[in-house]
Amino acid sequence: MVQKKTGGFTLPGESGYEALTLELAKKWGADVIRDSDGTALSDEILNAGYDIYSTICIIRDHNDWAKQNPDKLQQTFLMTQPVVAEADSLTIPLMKDFFADQFAVNESPESIAYWQVFDRTSGAELPRSQWTYDSASQCVALTGVTKWHAYTVNFMAFRIWEEISMYNHTTNNWNKEHLMQIDPIHTETQEYMLNWLDEWCVNHPATNVIRFTSMFYNFVWIWGSDENNRHLFTDWASYDFTVSPRALELFAEKYGYRITSEDFINKGKLRVTHAVPDQRKLDWMAFINDFVIEFGKKLIDIAHKYNKLAYVFYDDSWVGIEPYNGRFAEFGFDGIIKCVFSGFEARLGSGVEGVATHELRLHPYLFPVGLGGLPTFMEGGNPTLDAKNFWNSIRRALLRAPVDRIGLGGYLHLVEPYPDFCDYIEKIADEFREIRDLHQSGKPYSLTPKIGVLTAWGKLRSWICSGHYHENPELDLINIMESLSGLPFEVEFLSFEDIKAGIPSDVGVIINAGTAGSAWSGGELWNDAAVVEAITGWVHGGGVFLGVNEPSAAPGQDTLFRMAQVLGVDRDTGERISHGKWPVEAVQPGFTLPAGLKVREGVYLTNGKAKVWAAAGKTPTASVHDFGKGKGVYLSSYTHSVANTRALLELILAAAGQSAEQLYLTDNAYAECAYYPDSNTLILINNSDSEQTITVRTEKSGAVTETLAAFDTKILRV
Amino acid sequence: MVQKKTGGFTLPGESGYEALTLELAKKWGADVIRDSDGTALSDEILNAGYDIYSTICIIRDHNDWAKQNPDKLQQTFLMTQPVVAEADSLTIPLMKDFFADQFAVNESPESIAYWQVFDRTSGAELPRSQWTYDSASQCVALTGVTKWHAYTVNFMAFRIWEEISMYNHTTNNWNKEHLMQIDPIHTETQEYMLNWLDEWCVNHPATNVIRFTSMFYNFVWIWGSDENNRHLFTDWASYDFTVSPRALELFAEKYGYRITSEDFINKGKLRVTHAVPDQRKLDWMAFINDFVIEFGKKLIDIAHKYNKLAYVFYDDSWVGIEPYNGRFAEFGFDGIIKCVFSGFEARLGSGVEGVATHELRLHPYLFPVGLGGLPTFMEGGNPTLDAKNFWNSIRRALLRAPVDRIGLGGYLHLVEPYPDFCDYIEKIADEFREIRDLHQSGKPYSLTPKIGVLTAWGKLRSWICSGHYHENPELDLINIMESLSGLPFEVEFLSFEDIKAGIPSDVGVIINAGTAGSAWSGGELWNDAAVVEAITGWVHGGGVFLGVNEPSAAPGQDTLFRMAQVLGVDRDTGERISHGKWPVEAVQPGFTLPAGLKVREGVYLTNGKAKVWAAAGKTPTASVHDFGKGKGVYLSSYTHSVANTRALLELILAAAGQSAEQLYLTDNAYAECAYYPDSNTLILINNSDSEQTITVRTEKSGAVTETLAAFDTKILRV
Repeated sequence: MVQKKTGGFTLPGESGYEALTLELAKKWGADVIRDSDGTALSDEILNAGYDIYSTICIIRDHNDWAKQNPDKLQQTFLMTQPVVAEADSLTIPLMKDFFADQFAVNESPESIAYWQVFDRTSGAELPRSQWTYDSASQCVALTGVTKWHAYTVNFMAFRIWEEISMYNHTTNNWNKEHLMQIDPIHTETQEYMLNWLDEWCVNHPATNVIRFTSMFYNFVWIWGSDENNRHLFTDWASYDFTVSPRALELFAEKYGYRITSEDFINKGKLRVTHAVPDQRKLDWMAFINDFVIEFGKKLIDIAHKYNKLAYVFYDDSWVGIEPYNGRFAEFGFDGIIKCVFSGFEARLGSGVEGVATHELRLHPYLFPVGLGGLPTFMEGGNPTLDAKNFWNSIRRALLRAPVDRIGLGGYLHLVEPYPDFCDYIEKIADEFREIRDLHQSGKPYSLTPKIGVLTAWGKLRSWICSGHYHENPELDLINIMESLSGLPFEVEFLSFEDIKAGIPSDVGVIINAGTAGSAWSGGELWNDAAVVEAITGWVHGGGVFLGVNEPSAAPGQDTLFRMAQVLGVDRDTGERISHGKWPVEAVQPGFTLPAGLKVREGVYLTNGKAKVWAAAGKTPTASVHDFGKGKGVYLSSYTHSVANTRALLELILAAAGQSAEQLYLTDNAYAECAYYPDSNTLILINNSDSEQTITVRTEKSGAVTETLAAFDTKILRV
Repeated sequence: MVQKKTGGFTLPGESGYEALTLELAKKWGADVIRDSDGTALSDEILNAGYDIYSTICIIRDHNDWAKQNPDKLQQTFLMTQPVVAEADSLTIPLMKDFFADQFAVNESPESIAYWQVFDRTSGAELPRSQWTYDSASQCVALTGVTKWHAYTVNFMAFRIWEEISMYNHTTNNWNKEHLMQIDPIHTETQEYMLNWLDEWCVNHPATNVIRFTSMFYNFVWIWGSDENNRHLFTDWASYDFTVSPRALELFAEKYGYRITSEDFINKGKLRVTHAVPDQRKLDWMAFINDFVIEFGKKLIDIAHKYNKLAYVFYDDSWVGIEPYNGRFAEFGFDGIIKCVFSGFEARLGSGVEGVATHELRLHPYLFPVGLGGLPTFMEGGNPTLDAKNFWNSIRRALLRAPVDRIGLGGYLHLVEPYPDFCDYIEKIADEFREIRDLHQSGKPYSLTPKIGVLTAWGKLRSWICSGHYHENPELDLINIMESLSGLPFEVEFLSFEDIKAGIPSDVGVIINAGTAGSAWSGGELWNDAAVVEAITGWVHGGGVFLGVNEPSAAPGQDTLFRMAQVLGVDRDTGERISHGKWPVEAVQPGFTLPAGLKVREGVYLTNGKAKVWAAAGKTPTASVHDFGKGKGVYLSSYTHSVANTRALLELILAAAGQSAEQLYLTDNAYAECAYYPDSNTLILINNSDSEQTITVRTEKSGAVTETLAAFDTKILRV
């Protein structure tokens, strides 16, 4: 039994529940008490001897100023749904498809200058002389259109309800004023914000840490007018919410060319993070990042001036901060806080460089309803089980990578009827502190090879696709990231430029996973022969290229998979149905394959030399192809699960020519371990909901066998 | 009981089996006796009072001449499999991948002038200065290549074994000389063939009909060196086997530009019929068609000079004949013979214009083994059941469209141990003659609407995709054709040019069915906005656009399906995974949907207004969308079956606003009927292998109810 530690825990306090706040602060070993969106801290709490986090959403909670400056609200481009012309003129109502509480047409001439009307049937823009906007009806009238073609209008709209507030308001059935969001791109807004923050610091002497939520621009969340299809578009990492006529003008001055509404709208598809970015998008991101750093730093300086620390929330209005582009230290933040459901999100938070403190906001939030819409702290909910499952996902990531703090958010009073939840959080907090301290004495033991994950984004989108696991569970890469987040391999995220600059010498496996054309597979970037050359030569020399779903897919040459020569498989999209196919006879490898491999119609053996590990009928779903000293490995899909994670581990070891009989690996697929050589400490974790007996071979103590209860953790000196 | 008729039946005679030949000729009501590949007719048969068909394969059976003129054998372009360069030079053996009995490298300078070497990694051609051919090793040596790029060689090869003979030889384990095929593109070959045919006619006075098998160029059938992947490429309608240095030169003179080997090779994909043809392919097809008509006519004239009829076999060496391009009458053929497995092939044969006699060659062929490789007239075979199943498919097509004759092919002696087969053929022959005569008295009753099938090929590939049903059973359109072949609708095949010229006024339903990019869906031809306009306006006015799988798919605009505005559904290939989706709630229509609808991942409702008839989870598999007075109907797939055919009929009637309670429709999905108003005759057919009771509403006799045995036919006067 290790001695009980405290600290590293942030508790959401709540006025009116002072006794509960202080009781749980003690139980959970909290050293910090915070407020939340919709809660406040009373003096009794503020003066109880804890450090105080105060959340500030700098672009929100300024409705008075916003009402006086309605032209300085934040904005976005929107595209109307296509309307088919039944005559040579057509009238398109702008707001018909959109949530009227979220958007209001920006009718200013500077805004309308950016509007565009497209014939989506021909793809051509309709000349400005052929359309007019009528403010009274909020419609655009088109003339000289082609009968039976479909037309859309790109327009600019103010966002009149800050989206996170809108979500919390709707979820919790609040009955209060809608909060607006103001845009610091305007000098006047900047002055207002700087003054406001200065004054706020003066008035909040008890606050030790200002938690910015976050900087200025929210991830994209476009709501529709129809309750049946409310969430028209959601992207955690896109820049649509950063636009304004002013920003667009400043961009044109700086970059020497003008961004159009269509650059964002992209035929209604928007520039989703899942797609390979074009140069104009990258330029815009750099432009916004410059601005966010420049002005954000001024706010952080104010916090520091008042001897407060500045932490930033790596969610919500995080767009433009880009903690993985190498410039994050320029802000001067003291801490970063990531909200986490999953292991990969814990790694995302942990991996940020240029900041002293890394904190995770655990789920479940202390809300009646969870983000997925299911009950949590209300009838039908089981918050303790939720907490166990979330911790189960996050704990294994925390064994691999350090974080400094954890915490909760929401309304503390909701936990009162759930004493088992309170006990479980106490257990989590204790475990967390043990793990944190192990990292402080030295890195955990890792296996070779190091894994490189190749995407169009590279390091910039390390440990993330474009949102939470439950939002796009079908993405192979999000599943792979979730499995990798707790595996004993080092992981590096590589871009195509990184490959061309030279594959890092310690990388032994390159994973490329996703559908054709996606940022995760790489799309058109595979048309760069230098990339194919580099990876082909590297595999020939002994590397492993692990392709999942449609790896290296780029149409236009002889094979869809540009790495077909290494993989020995390719995918036919219908052009080869008259071609003969090599027979497919699956031979089980010497390890368990990941279960649930999906059938990708048209996958075929290019030269008959790949060994098929699994197939659905005549379609390979897993294969290996020797190439020089290395291997091309193909998986048709990958779905994260505890068992599949173990299968992936064994597959990587086998492909890389390593034995599955390694030190510091469990013999049980439902359990994992981490060994910290500097403190001679072995942590065993049971990732399952049933008791598991686990044996681990250690260097100094031989085989160690332990039995762990469901979800349990054991810490041993070995 | 109708009176027994004779005629309209072609029997394959066999020397040495004279008694059997004449006995079966009588039993089956034959009026014609033919020879087959590998059989001959004795004088006893020739003089028995029957008309005599003699098969002539004009490009084959001239091995003596071929050996003296090895440079006048037929040819093809071939591409070696990609080889990855591991240094800056590379040697590629040409024949490694190919069946040495089928191909021999054409090493002449005129041939090598057309060879090309490609870097398939970059897509660039390697300059001629960087490669040389070594005749001794039959290898091409490449220099100055890029390490880790993959290279291929396009070369020209003589075909040294006529493919149909090669197939028959292999299938029947013949032990005799391989027959070669000579190319009439050379003046010397033409002279030889004309003289040979003249002489043949002189020596075969008993022959009434010369059956040409067929003209000159076989469909493409490229065999590989490895028995595990013998059939490298098979396409019933491609032109690869028409090339030669001389033809290429003549083309360049006539068209003013030069066709390259890569125009045929197309990155190793070849110019498969399933793909949308480019203009160079269309030019080449026209060039070959000109030549085949010009020289073919000279041969036909010789037959006519000797008072023999000239029939052509619409299979094997049929390439370049193009019976559906409007020029077929120019040949002067007296008859066309189509080999049929399926209903759509019967319609393909029946629909040829410009010839007096249409004949079908029924299956099973009198061979030990069928085309699919399964036993027929040998142990393990059941030729009677095969015949029933084939007749079941073909009979319903014959009810809709007339043919003049049927017949068999192969070795007659094989039927001796199968008296039930002989009885069943007698029954078929009798039924056939009844049906034939009904057509002669007038057309069968048809329902509205007329159906237009829209493909990249239009009329040219009426009633065919690119081969037999069993070769590409996954194609939606081949399944639809098979169902339509016996349905009581008129059917017209439309090209995109036809649509732009004006949709025929009697067409009420347009079907577009296939995968994105295929000739059947239409691929890039959908980028022509005039096509979208025309069909959109036509649907708005009351038409039905029935899209199957990826109808109207062409990437590059806002929707993948260019007719999404009419269909109300589109398919997302991964660009919209961050977009919200309309809820999918299937509501059964008032008729039975086709069974087995496949899930096409990513299909979504564009505007939420389509009514979903069927869905797999959140993915619609069948839907209808009102558009003006018309409808867009979507099916994710279509598989032919007796029951699905009935479902398709009901779906078409419902979409077109017609009642399913029509005159001359059976009430039983397993039975069909046809009514011939001019002869007051109703034919009932049982398409199933069990007894069926069938009621049909007629105009003059009210409801008629009959019970039919399995597979049976009844002919009634009503």
